[in-house]
Amino acid sequence: PDVQGSQDQRRVAINKVGVKDIRYPIALDTPSGGKQSTVATVNMYVSLPQEKKGTHMSRFLEILNKYHEAISSKDIMLVCHDMKQRLNADDAHLELEFPYFIDKEAPISGMPGKLDIEVSFECNSNGTDDFILGIKVPATSLCPCSKEISKYGAHNQRCVMEAKVRFAEGQSMMIEELFEIVEKCASTQVFSVLKRPDEKFVTEDAYENPKFVEDIVRDLAVALNNEDRIAWYQVNSENFESIHNHNAYAMVERDKR
Amino acid sequence: PDVQGSQDQRRVAINKVGVKDIRYPIALDTPSGGKQSTVATVNMYVSLPQEKKGTHMSRFLEILNKYHEAISSKDIMLVCHDMKQRLNADDAHLELEFPYFIDKEAPISGMPGKLDIEVSFECNSNGTDDFILGIKVPATSLCPCSKEISKYGAHNQRCVMEAKVRFAEGQSMMIEELFEIVEKCASTQVFSVLKRPDEKFVTEDAYENPKFVEDIVRDLAVALNNEDRIAWYQVNSENFESIHNHNAYAMVERDKR
Amino acid sequence: PDVQGSQDQRRVAINKVGVKDIRYPIALDTPSGGKQSTVATVNMYVSLPQEKKGTHMSRFLEILNKYHEAISSKDIMLVCHDMKQRLNADDAHLELEFPYFIDKEAPISGMPGKLDIEVSFECNSNGTDDFILGIKVPATSLCPCSKEISKYGAHNQRCVMEAKVRFAEGQSMMIEELFEIVEKCASTQVFSVLKRPDEKFVTEDAYENPKFVEDIVRDLAVALNNEDRIAWYQVNSENFESIHNHNAYAMVERDKR
Amino acid sequence: PDVQGSQDQRRVAINKVGVKDIRYPIALDTPSGGKQSTVATVNMYVSLPQEKKGTHMSRFLEILNKYHEAISSKDIMLVCHDMKQRLNADDAHLELEFPYFIDKEAPISGMPGKLDIEVSFECNSNGTDDFILGIKVPATSLCPCSKEISKYGAHNQRCVMEAKVRFAEGQSMMIEELFEIVEKCASTQVFSVLKRPDEKFVTEDAYENPKFVEDIVRDLAVALNNEDRIAWYQVNSENFESIHNHNAYAMVERDKR
Repeated sequence: PDVQGSQDQRRVAINKVGVKDIRYPIALDTPSGGKQSTVATVNMYVSLPQEKKGTHMSRFLEILNKYHEAISSKDIMLVCHDMKQRLNADDAHLELEFPYFIDKEAPISGMPGKLDIEVSFECNSNGTDDFILGIKVPATSLCPCSKEISKYGAHNQRCVMEAKVRFAEGQSMMIEELFEIVEKCASTQVFSVLKRPDEKFVTEDAYENPKFVEDIVRDLAVALNNEDRIAWYQVNSENFESIHNHNAYAMVERDKR
Repeated sequence: PDVQGSQDQRRVAINKVGVKDIRYPIALDTPSGGKQSTVATVNMYVSLPQEKKGTHMSRFLEILNKYHEAISSKDIMLVCHDMKQRLNADDAHLELEFPYFIDKEAPISGMPGKLDIEVSFECNSNGTDDFILGIKVPATSLCPCSKEISKYGAHNQRCVMEAKVRFAEGQSMMIEELFEIVEKCASTQVFSVLKRPDEKFVTEDAYENPKFVEDIVRDLAVALNNEDRIAWYQVNSENFESIHNHNAYAMVERDKR
Repeated sequence: PDVQGSQDQRRVAINKVGVKDIRYPIALDTPSGGKQSTVATVNMYVSLPQEKKGTHMSRFLEILNKYHEAISSKDIMLVCHDMKQRLNADDAHLELEFPYFIDKEAPISGMPGKLDIEVSFECNSNGTDDFILGIKVPATSLCPCSKEISKYGAHNQRCVMEAKVRFAEGQSMMIEELFEIVEKCASTQVFSVLKRPDEKFVTEDAYENPKFVEDIVRDLAVALNNEDRIAWYQVNSENFESIHNHNAYAMVERDKR
Repeated sequence: PDVQGSQDQRRVAINKVGVKDIRYPIALDTPSGGKQSTVATVNMYVSLPQEKKGTHMSRFLEILNKYHEAISSKDIMLVCHDMKQRLNADDAHLELEFPYFIDKEAPISGMPGKLDIEVSFECNSNGTDDFILGIKVPATSLCPCSKEISKYGAHNQRCVMEAKVRFAEGQSMMIEELFEIVEKCASTQVFSVLKRPDEKFVTEDAYENPKFVEDIVRDLAVALNNEDRIAWYQVNSENFESIHNHNAYAMVERDKR
């Protein structure tokens, strides 16, 4: 008995139906031509017309199983296209979120280390294709007001800057390229390994570049305004204030098209 | 030195700036005329024009401190209006999320107990006012396909149904009213206390009402279509499948206006 | 058919069996004689001898329902005793964790505000009674090394200090008393509302009191060594380093008995 | 100025000090001789004697950077030994937690898929070495009481079984070996891909093997009692009850030595 294939009488079309919070290993292409292995949380949905009773849940996993070893921001829409075809659907939605590791040397000592950032792919395919690349980058923010009004010192804290971008027609960017633009916008950068001269450097660098959460998102906006490959962006920063038990937050969204 | 009050030259207006993830005690009006105390996670943002350097973060907390003992879905927009005025802003955004407790008696034994649901208020005030009431209701879903194809039994699991609604002009609903509509849409309800006859009842009730995740969101949609006070809704269900380590999900959104 | 009451042949006694992650409203006695309402996450377990097939899960919720409106660290062991009796068990274990709000005025302006701390009760009753009170207190830490080696500034960040304590025979403490001891041990305190003179104060106060994570836990240990009502403690601090994307952590445990 | 190297006068030795919640890519040896790449959350601590002011935080990351590409449960204590030596400490503590993927074919159709389990390594080295291997395995539990008392059906739900084990002198086990023992102890197994005949199989298999949370931990205990390589264990199961919004939980701990 094909329960999912029977007719539905309620006249309600479903925007999205599928599988959520699948944890799966993936491998991504890197700029150097190699692969980076990581673990993604994946959501996969299609639309369902009003007359169809149900979708076929197992096919989503079969598709994921087919593609997971060769994921790239360039080719990820192909997975969406395959979802539409195999599920016989008008719309397909695919979301991946995963930690990604950037090799970074400490600023003075040159000690090697890895910085973990959070990357997301949001893919939607209906009449047209839509792809949003997102990255969350940890950094340091130092408060200009606190610096200005205090005899010495200034409160500072870890922040997480997020940039979500849509590309102009025919354009794309590697994760590493977007990361480099974003990372420059805070008071200073964070590192996994810092020796004493490195710690001196980042402390002084942050003090010399005080930024409100408003400054960080404005600098992110200016940087992405200057990048012609990007057609739309939403940027935000969340600062884990060292002087409060809540966070400061700011967001700017712009469609250049 | 008024650092926040100085001029900014970057020509970037900020959509949202403020405070995020504040944990604060609140008291809500209940239908019986009493108060329910709970703990909310609160976000408060305003817009900032391009020439202004920064907003005044401490004022958000002063506003929260003023209103937190008398929160209701009916009057919550007033807080948004106060944010606009005190922060001299064009737009204000206020988000609250909190557990809310519904007194529910077990279906056969009548044993008293409390069910925890998750409630959200999303308020936006710029030219016009916009309020979205959201509730997340736990329940049971039982798979029609599994029931149909198996000699006996059927896989079932906890699910969480979410309904977000906008009201028609001049209309509103208590949390309890929306809860009652939503709760009926799963295979059966969940309870905090169940004695043996109650457990027999919910087991059989679920078996007699098998529903795919698609059926749950369709039944939610039909129920909200029939409620004239609601002008827009987005409903979804997430089913924590007992036969997988990932979840099934479906979503329907509709603007009736 | 009393399935839970039948005999089990596997010869395996169960250390803990019961209900976990119940979210429930509770009301606590305050020093001023009033009540503070909050929302707890509750675990309730008993031991089960090898011959018994199962425990009676619904009774845990009935007990919680009976006591939830009058919780205090002084009387919480009574709930454990009731669990032993009603479930006919040798051992009972009760765990509560909840946000608790401390009224705190800003250090210079005196502006009122609330600080959210996290409180835990761990109760074990078998032959003897055992009660552990725990609190997690957010604060600011400022790095002595960064201050020492840098021309200006010093990296600082939010930290969370935790103290878990057992009391000496016949002794007890209010949450507020333990909070006051713990809060003094960081570089400076955090507040929900800070006006400009307050921000200047906490910035300078932190700079004048640089502390490694090691210093914080040692100061916590010294403070609790000096408190005769406390017989055992475990203290730790987790510092959300502003210069890294990982945290610094230290822990000291001592039994004075 | 060597701030960390200076003398401390407070006479408080520190049990653990180091770095917490580092996210890092690791590669593990698999039974087939290959490698599995995943992402771990890592904590690294050492003890600090009372006279020493501070430890050297950056060295933990240098050690992690050295070993992360060749992690195995067999050799992980070597990392602990290296921590003791490089940090000049009496005790070292190393904790890793990571998702690990098991290739599993669907029970009837043989469709390939991956199951994500959660693995933990806890290593302590002071006078002696101590290693605890932990795995968390998702599965299905079906309630015997619900089956017994109901005309048809039985409530079932996803559960997570956890086993933590210490090995007998000179013994060890691959993750896959412990997984196979644990997975058999629930009502039935979960899979990432299930076609219709598979869904029929797991539905009926669960119905034919009803187990309370008490039964699951007892079956886990019996299975580990029979495994001579294991000297100590703690097993638990958390069942996400489909008829409640809270979970059932049971735990058994045994030292065979």
